[in-house]
Amino acid sequence: MYRTHTCWELTAQQAWKQVTLCWRVNKVRNLWGMTFIDLRDRYGITQITHDPAKSKIEFPEVKSEYVVQIIWEVVARPDAMINKDMATGAIEINALEVKVLTKAKLLPFSIVEEPNTSEENRFKHRYLDLRRRKILDNVLFRSKMLTFTRNRFSDKWFVDVQTPIFTVSSPEGARDYLVPSRINPGQFYALPQAPQQYKQLLMVWGIDKYFQIAPCFRDEDPRADRHSCEFYQIDCEMSFINQEDVYSVVEWYLNSLIPTLSPHKKIIVAFKRLKHREAVDQYGSDKPDLRFGMPLVEMTQDFANSGFTVFKDTVANKWTIKAMKFEHKILSRKEADALTEEVKKNGAKGLAYICFDAEWVKGPIAKFLSPEDIETIKAKTWAKEGDTVLFVADTYDTVTKSLGRLRIYIRDTYLTLDKDDLAFCRIEDFPLFELDDTGKLDFCHNPFSIVKWWAEALKNPDRLEIYSEQYDLSCNGYEILSWSIRNHDPELLLETFKMVGRGEEEIKQKFGAMYEAFQFGPPPHGWFAIGFDRLLMILKDEENIREVYAFPKSGRAQDVMMWAPGFVDQNQLDDLGIELNAKTKKILAW
Amino acid sequence: MYRTHTCWELTAQQAWKQVTLCWRVNKVRNLWGMTFIDLRDRYGITQITHDPAKSKIEFPEVKSEYVVQIIWEVVARPDAMINKDMATGAIEINALEVKVLTKAKLLPFSIVEEPNTSEENRFKHRYLDLRRRKILDNVLFRSKMLTFTRNRFSDKWFVDVQTPIFTVSSPEGARDYLVPSRINPGQFYALPQAPQQYKQLLMVWGIDKYFQIAPCFRDEDPRADRHSCEFYQIDCEMSFINQEDVYSVVEWYLNSLIPTLSPHKKIIVAFKRLKHREAVDQYGSDKPDLRFGMPLVEMTQDFANSGFTVFKDTVANKWTIKAMKFEHKILSRKEADALTEEVKKNGAKGLAYICFDAEWVKGPIAKFLSPEDIETIKAKTWAKEGDTVLFVADTYDTVTKSLGRLRIYIRDTYLTLDKDDLAFCRIEDFPLFELDDTGKLDFCHNPFSIVKWWAEALKNPDRLEIYSEQYDLSCNGYEILSWSIRNHDPELLLETFKMVGRGEEEIKQKFGAMYEAFQFGPPPHGWFAIGFDRLLMILKDEENIREVYAFPKSGRAQDVMMWAPGFVDQNQLDDLGIELNAKTKKILAW
Repeated sequence: MYRTHTCWELTAQQAWKQVTLCWRVNKVRNLWGMTFIDLRDRYGITQITHDPAKSKIEFPEVKSEYVVQIIWEVVARPDAMINKDMATGAIEINALEVKVLTKAKLLPFSIVEEPNTSEENRFKHRYLDLRRRKILDNVLFRSKMLTFTRNRFSDKWFVDVQTPIFTVSSPEGARDYLVPSRINPGQFYALPQAPQQYKQLLMVWGIDKYFQIAPCFRDEDPRADRHSCEFYQIDCEMSFINQEDVYSVVEWYLNSLIPTLSPHKKIIVAFKRLKHREAVDQYGSDKPDLRFGMPLVEMTQDFANSGFTVFKDTVANKWTIKAMKFEHKILSRKEADALTEEVKKNGAKGLAYICFDAEWVKGPIAKFLSPEDIETIKAKTWAKEGDTVLFVADTYDTVTKSLGRLRIYIRDTYLTLDKDDLAFCRIEDFPLFELDDTGKLDFCHNPFSIVKWWAEALKNPDRLEIYSEQYDLSCNGYEILSWSIRNHDPELLLETFKMVGRGEEEIKQKFGAMYEAFQFGPPPHGWFAIGFDRLLMILKDEENIREVYAFPKSGRAQDVMMWAPGFVDQNQLDDLGIELNAKTKKILAW
Repeated sequence: MYRTHTCWELTAQQAWKQVTLCWRVNKVRNLWGMTFIDLRDRYGITQITHDPAKSKIEFPEVKSEYVVQIIWEVVARPDAMINKDMATGAIEINALEVKVLTKAKLLPFSIVEEPNTSEENRFKHRYLDLRRRKILDNVLFRSKMLTFTRNRFSDKWFVDVQTPIFTVSSPEGARDYLVPSRINPGQFYALPQAPQQYKQLLMVWGIDKYFQIAPCFRDEDPRADRHSCEFYQIDCEMSFINQEDVYSVVEWYLNSLIPTLSPHKKIIVAFKRLKHREAVDQYGSDKPDLRFGMPLVEMTQDFANSGFTVFKDTVANKWTIKAMKFEHKILSRKEADALTEEVKKNGAKGLAYICFDAEWVKGPIAKFLSPEDIETIKAKTWAKEGDTVLFVADTYDTVTKSLGRLRIYIRDTYLTLDKDDLAFCRIEDFPLFELDDTGKLDFCHNPFSIVKWWAEALKNPDRLEIYSEQYDLSCNGYEILSWSIRNHDPELLLETFKMVGRGEEEIKQKFGAMYEAFQFGPPPHGWFAIGFDRLLMILKDEENIREVYAFPKSGRAQDVMMWAPGFVDQNQLDDLGIELNAKTKKILAW
């Protein structure tokens, strides 16, 4: 046996016992002829002192990050000497034997403080980067959250089913990762973007409550809140439920998770409900951050007769004008330029603004506005002295999108939010259909969600006014979960597919197993999926999702430590019956 | 709300309450003018009677497998009427309302009894196949075993770390599944055969106890005890341990799992220890089934002067003769032929045997054996009247292999073992090296296992007599887990690689991250991995591993329900920069 205790376990209770500790040297200091070693393991830190005047043992050379084994006798400190800053501060230790198990080269970057190196270098030596307490905490927290989550659902009779990781390419949704099949030449498996069809088939079978912390795979370009290659979702499907039943499970889970694992987090907005249209209208986003105000204020009709021709023409064009108040802020020219840049990035032609400075109204458009216009603005936005009001006049989509993004830009640039605040917002009534780029009607989300009030809704000739039983929950501006009630009636499914010009043949071809399964008595059912990594990222205050994985992929979807992806031998490709195409060969030849 | 209770929950306690049940109609019978419906859900079965003379409600047409919703009043049965065979036999029910939620077509095969159809047809409609209680039980058991296992390890401070599913092609071991990278043209990810390198890196980092129920991927040909595409292992790595420490964790886990989840199973052989060489010598296998006897008996030298020239020549050739006693069995000619066929399949030239019938010794070779030979055989094998003794004379490898397989053949053909018996056998002292097909020295197992007594062992000029700290555990003839202590010393690692003619350059190229990580103070560490699916298969008495997956792959590595793998669109291949090679195109053109 290498060790009898971990660092964390040593307290005054072990006094006068002989113990063996193993772990890493955190720090060595020599002072007054004595040696002080902080020994670190995953559980804690124990300080060891060696006084050559008292102990005659052979003491090898010990440096930071060495792994040592020390046999000691634990001595309780006198009350006056207790170090209350350390969990193990009530004890001291007499060495009986010290052995260096393995040595360590000098680390390429500091692990005690914030890293003094690039992300690439950190990820290249992730096994060292992980020695930093912050990252260790993330990984330990992830483990706790996995255990907590699984037990919560198991306790409620959910069945943990591992759905296949090798499945078939899905015709809807994002790009698939493909795996060539050696045994079936020319054919490919796809890794599942989510286990959707399998979990619906579980319902047809008779598992009434399914859950899994499911690996999902989408070949999308990396983003700060989206990890390359794989990510995980808490995946559920339930039979005999309506959407409020689903929602109550979601709320129950979050309301038990957060106080248990992150008790310092405060839910300041508890599951506010907004219709999809309201969210876009008021916050320019379908995942609004409700930790702060700054709603978008509708002002189109207020400027129908404005002296400012840009506004007047906008109204005449049946376009939209919205305002947003920036409280306690008079913009400098430079600041105004930066905000303008931001709305232009999102398609607006420009940003208008007025500042309510002292007694005067200032800003480039102030002179075009009548006193009545100013009064209306004040009345609608509740602007006071010291505030600025920002305007965008454009098509409805551009106004909402650009002001929505500007709102987030201002949050990130000017506001100081309490990082422990959590604001949840529930988005309802997603439209079932949308127009695609060519103006053709297509499904907006998942074609398998049921139509809201379907008996009536399907008669509505305005297809864009048909809604689905599809819901989202956002937290602090991140989309963290979705749920919906399924359309389990093959007739009704066919009817909605026909509305977008797709017939039974296509359903059978693309969703054959499910369409056939629905002939054998499917129960009514619904689902939700929580972004496990994203929720973890919020609870651990990380701005980049990569930090919540033990071994993350880089911004180029690479594991820079393991050199993945990499080139493979020709015979591996031959076995699989594939080769690189001409374009790729040309790229590689450069 | 669709339902107030599940079938299983209804007992006399709910008497006189109004309840709503939803689920599937298991059976409908009409008798004496009344209707009897067995309603089935995952939890149990509830019998419902409808007597039109008592209840005037409208009763829709109900058939097997329909999904119905029924509002009833629960009535406690008089004591004399209680049906003790049903969990819900203490109640009867008065219908208030009956509604058919969804109808079902006639099922393509029976789900109540053993299936009357092919495996392919069952898998094609797996969502129906799963309605059979036996398969449902497997899936519910799997969920319980997942939960139990994770909690056992979490409770003991193991950290659940999800290692990457997208990694790099491993130069050792089985064939990898590859995933082309779109963002990095010409490069491929590999799915991990096991998280070996990552879990070793976790040790270098400082997680001293890691576990994960890890998905593993090996592109091997399917077999009854090996699932295609993915399988799962209970994957552990620990720091500061020796092999007995690892072993104690394994035993602790199995000794808590089996009595808790499968209390009817009996451990009849509790972790017998055999050296690898002993196992081969005595049972002709490195995963011997110890539920029954029939050891191989070494008899080479006993026939040095035999009158039977085949045996005598074998001894002269320095080959091997082993005997195996088949108790209480006199072989017919036909049976003997079948056994001979079996050893020939495994390379032996033939099978010799003698039967101890009444007073006579019979069998084709009986006449060549002297009375002394017969006496020796009796003394060594303890053969008695009514027994047969089987012999193979050949090279050592052929003798052990063919008799080992014959032992299993006899088990499957003649023996009736108690299916609840479990016999565990621990195999020790695996050789570190073996000769490959060309006679070159190569690693026998994992090159990262440490050498046993390495300081002495490496001086042994007979490389094949060097052993590694590598262990296996078998149960009932299945290999269910492996463990080893790692070689964490880069110098020693280099030394063993050099012994098989491989240098530092190759280590750096193939195992760069780990070799570098080992420069930064790795702790001594070791691992084990338990075949989750295989253990489950044994505990649930399944002979084919496919049955323990909710959605298995077929014998051709296909998901016949979802048509995976499948052909993909040309633009998907273009995105990935690959194409089918000429040979594949030719196959497809046929």
